[in-house]
Amino acid sequence: MNAVPAIGQGFDAHRFAEDPARQLWLAGLLWDGVGIEGDSDGDVAAHALIDALLSAAGLGDIGGLFGVGADAPGAGMHGCDMLRRTVDVLRSHGRMPSSASVVIIGNRPKIGRRREEAERALSDAVGCRVTVTATTTDHMGFTGRGEGIAAIANALVL
Amino acid sequence: MNAVPAIGQGFDAHRFAEDPARQLWLAGLLWDGVGIEGDSDGDVAAHALIDALLSAAGLGDIGGLFGVGADAPGAGMHGCDMLRRTVDVLRSHGRMPSSASVVIIGNRPKIGRRREEAERALSDAVGCRVTVTATTTDHMGFTGRGEGIAAIANALVL
Amino acid sequence: MNAVPAIGQGFDAHRFAEDPARQLWLAGLLWDGVGIEGDSDGDVAAHALIDALLSAAGLGDIGGLFGVGADAPGAGMHGCDMLRRTVDVLRSHGRMPSSASVVIIGNRPKIGRRREEAERALSDAVGCRVTVTATTTDHMGFTGRGEGIAAIANALVL
Repeated sequence: MNAVPAIGQGFDAHRFAEDPARQLWLAGLLWDGVGIEGDSDGDVAAHALIDALLSAAGLGDIGGLFGVGADAPGAGMHGCDMLRRTVDVLRSHGRMPSSASVVIIGNRPKIGRRREEAERALSDAVGCRVTVTATTTDHMGFTGRGEGIAAIANALVL
Repeated sequence: MNAVPAIGQGFDAHRFAEDPARQLWLAGLLWDGVGIEGDSDGDVAAHALIDALLSAAGLGDIGGLFGVGADAPGAGMHGCDMLRRTVDVLRSHGRMPSSASVVIIGNRPKIGRRREEAERALSDAVGCRVTVTATTTDHMGFTGRGEGIAAIANALVL
Repeated sequence: MNAVPAIGQGFDAHRFAEDPARQLWLAGLLWDGVGIEGDSDGDVAAHALIDALLSAAGLGDIGGLFGVGADAPGAGMHGCDMLRRTVDVLRSHGRMPSSASVVIIGNRPKIGRRREEAERALSDAVGCRVTVTATTTDHMGFTGRGEGIAAIANALVL
């Protein structure tokens, strides 16, 4: 284990779904309302965190680990299960997440009332404190027009 | 105090104001030109830093601390005063900002000549070195069209 | 050297070029296809990393070090050469990059097959592990419409 942690950055964005069968998974939780697109459950917060953790550990990215497309190993997986598998890969390389944080950018869902529940779900999956904040873009850009949700994450890995 | 700092991420965006009475506060400074919207002074750099600090400390987010809307406790507050109150909350929980950084994304104001002044204002408020960089988006997106300003921040907290 | 590293954040975005003479430099590599605009080689990943490193070290920003415009000292420079010069400046102030990470956001080029090659090029230039991840924005926003490429970077500096 290193005395100085390594840093990683992650980003993801997904479009709200037209298909009424899609659900809205975000930050490890299922939310009411229009669903989100994606090969997996479309959880942008979890996906941004996965890239932050993998890049901090120097172990590739989410596409390399879970594949891309409807036939990929990660197709249909939930964000928290993907996070758990990511952390398994880190641990098998002797690395351990130290802390991580994700900002969710979008008009909906409103994160506030379930922010702590989301932090618990993500922290449970990652095995260290993961924090969640949320903001909008004052009706500007694709998040402000309500086209989709974006997330920016960072992480420290020992 | 932890030997390994915890990491936080923050983001904010505000729209330029049509109301000529609004001022342009950014990175703790008052700038010439069209003002910016917001319940508080609309300082996106300060707000992104607040979420980076709170999330690094695991102490919630700017909405939880200052409320949302014109009647909220944070309504009308200046970014540096909000930063000072944020750091008070961190300290009351035994946490201390270690370093923080914010990127300002927008066409105006031009940060360059006052970059160091902005760093001093924010560093004074936070009580550790806070650095400021700035960039544009080549006329692309809502910042490139001059609709508003965005800021991405990160922070380490001990 | 400090026991606790300092953190920095960087961002950059450039537009795809209409001028067929422009090349597509990204993450230290030359890619096939339509080129990218910029005073230098337009490498948004390198530029975001430079701002992350400079801000972590408290040594200004890319505009201060390389200037802005076609007559600036940095005009025409390649991203990896700019990164090397940036690290020289850090070292001359007794600072040393510890780790850094960059997310590339855009429809093309497809980073996947050359991701590790890009990590080697950037890590060589910076002198520490630099990691690269890449994502798209589901056809949303300026990156999703294929107007340009953006990059978000973070760094730790001792």
